[in-house]
Amino acid sequence: MTDSSEASATEPLPLAGIRVLDFSQYLAGPSCALRLADLGADVIKVERGDGGDQCRKLVIANQRFGDDSVLFHTINRNKRSFAADLKKPQDMAQVHRLIAQSDVMIHNFRPGVMERLGLSWEAVRQINPRVVYGAVTGYGVVGPWRDKPGQDLLVQSLSGMAWLSGDADQGPVPSGVPAADILTGAHLAQGILAALVRRAVTGRGARVDVSLMESLFDLQFEIFTAYLRDGKAPQRGKVNSAGVVSAAPYGIYATSDGYLAIAMTPVDRLGQLLGCESLLAFDDPLTWFAQRDTIKALLRDHLATQTTQHWLDRLEPADVWCARVLDWPQLVEHDAFKALELTQELRYADGQSLMTTRCPIRVDGQRITATRGAPLLGEHTDEIRAEFSLVQPA
Amino acid sequence: MTDSSEASATEPLPLAGIRVLDFSQYLAGPSCALRLADLGADVIKVERGDGGDQCRKLVIANQRFGDDSVLFHTINRNKRSFAADLKKPQDMAQVHRLIAQSDVMIHNFRPGVMERLGLSWEAVRQINPRVVYGAVTGYGVVGPWRDKPGQDLLVQSLSGMAWLSGDADQGPVPSGVPAADILTGAHLAQGILAALVRRAVTGRGARVDVSLMESLFDLQFEIFTAYLRDGKAPQRGKVNSAGVVSAAPYGIYATSDGYLAIAMTPVDRLGQLLGCESLLAFDDPLTWFAQRDTIKALLRDHLATQTTQHWLDRLEPADVWCARVLDWPQLVEHDAFKALELTQELRYADGQSLMTTRCPIRVDGQRITATRGAPLLGEHTDEIRAEFSLVQPA
Repeated sequence: MTDSSEASATEPLPLAGIRVLDFSQYLAGPSCALRLADLGADVIKVERGDGGDQCRKLVIANQRFGDDSVLFHTINRNKRSFAADLKKPQDMAQVHRLIAQSDVMIHNFRPGVMERLGLSWEAVRQINPRVVYGAVTGYGVVGPWRDKPGQDLLVQSLSGMAWLSGDADQGPVPSGVPAADILTGAHLAQGILAALVRRAVTGRGARVDVSLMESLFDLQFEIFTAYLRDGKAPQRGKVNSAGVVSAAPYGIYATSDGYLAIAMTPVDRLGQLLGCESLLAFDDPLTWFAQRDTIKALLRDHLATQTTQHWLDRLEPADVWCARVLDWPQLVEHDAFKALELTQELRYADGQSLMTTRCPIRVDGQRITATRGAPLLGEHTDEIRAEFSLVQPA
Repeated sequence: MTDSSEASATEPLPLAGIRVLDFSQYLAGPSCALRLADLGADVIKVERGDGGDQCRKLVIANQRFGDDSVLFHTINRNKRSFAADLKKPQDMAQVHRLIAQSDVMIHNFRPGVMERLGLSWEAVRQINPRVVYGAVTGYGVVGPWRDKPGQDLLVQSLSGMAWLSGDADQGPVPSGVPAADILTGAHLAQGILAALVRRAVTGRGARVDVSLMESLFDLQFEIFTAYLRDGKAPQRGKVNSAGVVSAAPYGIYATSDGYLAIAMTPVDRLGQLLGCESLLAFDDPLTWFAQRDTIKALLRDHLATQTTQHWLDRLEPADVWCARVLDWPQLVEHDAFKALELTQELRYADGQSLMTTRCPIRVDGQRITATRGAPLLGEHTDEIRAEFSLVQPA
């Protein structure tokens, strides 16, 4: 097979011509809009003039880029910004005009806020019956958590997910990546795109609701279904746990010079390949889950005696599913990382640039990249007013 | 706001009328097809007659349902199964007829396999130029890892993600949920749906490629961008780490009777609310990241002295972002869980039933549920032959 990323593009990006108004802040909603922008949509962030998206001030690792957080720039690449105060009638009149000419709108206000602003789904479909209206909440549109603040770590904690990682002797271990935000954004993009597919047939828009809780719960669906079936709360293993329902040897093990991951593999065969005689007795697959701690402790002690490469030389030729554990400095030096061209450079009008990641989806054999960085607050207000023939407020 | 889930459905599901042929196995591809099925598509699993999707045999927690794993049933609800051997000319002729009448096809064969079978994207578009052709690989279509087995734990290990969770004194800590599989499936669904949006305009299909590595890398995009900027490998905190770039107090803490999660909050204010005088000195926000271990150790010792409810009574009225940490037995008893109606019952022809989760996306204010369980291998072969006017092979 040839490298299809070299094929010439003959089609527009999939969402070329789709206009998205994004009223959302922080991570989940903007990550949905980012994906729609990646795929070719024109995304306009509608932001309050006094500060805008609060993510602009959400600094992680003490890193800023200009006046805003690097985090904001990462998640808002390739978008435009329109400043509007939804409490001012003349601004709201302009927002109505934007809605009338858009395909999608997104918000993450708490339940009830858009209703009070006169931008409920029912109100918006009066303005434009073709709009797909996407809303993100923390805990869904019903129930006692409806008005609770939706935040990634809190939803990991309430959803039970924090009990699925780490070892049995630890407390709950949260994920180091914002899984709830990103997965919720991904689900919102799915719902919005499916609604656009339907609109091409019916001519009518839709309302799409997602929440951090429902999305993070969905991420646990396999293990939760097992829980519903046997009623036993999941128990993490005591030794190198990598999943509450996984049998030995599934896990990550220290070697004499690093770490080695081993996925599903018959334990007795693994013992043969590694020269670990104590594993040979485990020839009944039912023992691999029931005695996972015993097996993994034997394996842990054995693997610690040699280098990662020593073990890979035995396992890879035998097609055992295994891998070296890399950190980022190792990863970025690897030829595989370079071949995938996983990064891109954003360029700013003032001459600055920012390296970040790219869209993970290839379309028509092409990597999708875009060099436009995140917008300054209100950077495109005048441009958009001209484009949409909006009168400038006095 | 009223409970919109009670609104009556007036529209078909978004993907009603879309037909998906799914040749993929295990988790990533089938999880994409599951979401398309949730949203209304007719999903046909094309499986080898001798064993079918290998996920049927992938037993987790020693749980089976009939002849197959519960895992298989969880991820393949609401699909049909068509048995075909792609190496038999008469079966392949039928598959060509199915492709000619389908909107989407999905596979996760290693690079080159579909080309050898005569089902490359170039070949398939000759059969049906409107088909959207989605492919899942482990590590992308180029580079030295192209032919390496793609598996969730291994990709977590190679992508650097395993170094983002857990505390500084631990080795790499993998996620207890299959984040790579599920996110890759989500990205594939996004790409396929965006291509269907474009097809409604152009009349032409598309090729969409995703990989476990590119998707898991995208999940880390915020932190990786910070890494690219300062070149410093991320360091987990020593105390209750919940993210390599997060300042104190972000984390989960043991109380005298459970666990409490606290998200972004000014440390000095937190000290006032909790009556923890040693925190009052940290009034410079720059210290919250730089001295996160010191701050979190003080907080850890203080929070251990009282119950979770004691602290919630002080923090929640002050609008601090915090939450109790629940396990599943606690979650399923909670009114919030019940109000969200997060589960559904699958029903089987033989009278059995299986409780599982539901689609996390609400459309037009409706929860989306479907009672049809996963198919037996080849269960719908005859039905589909009749529907597509396929001649039964001799």
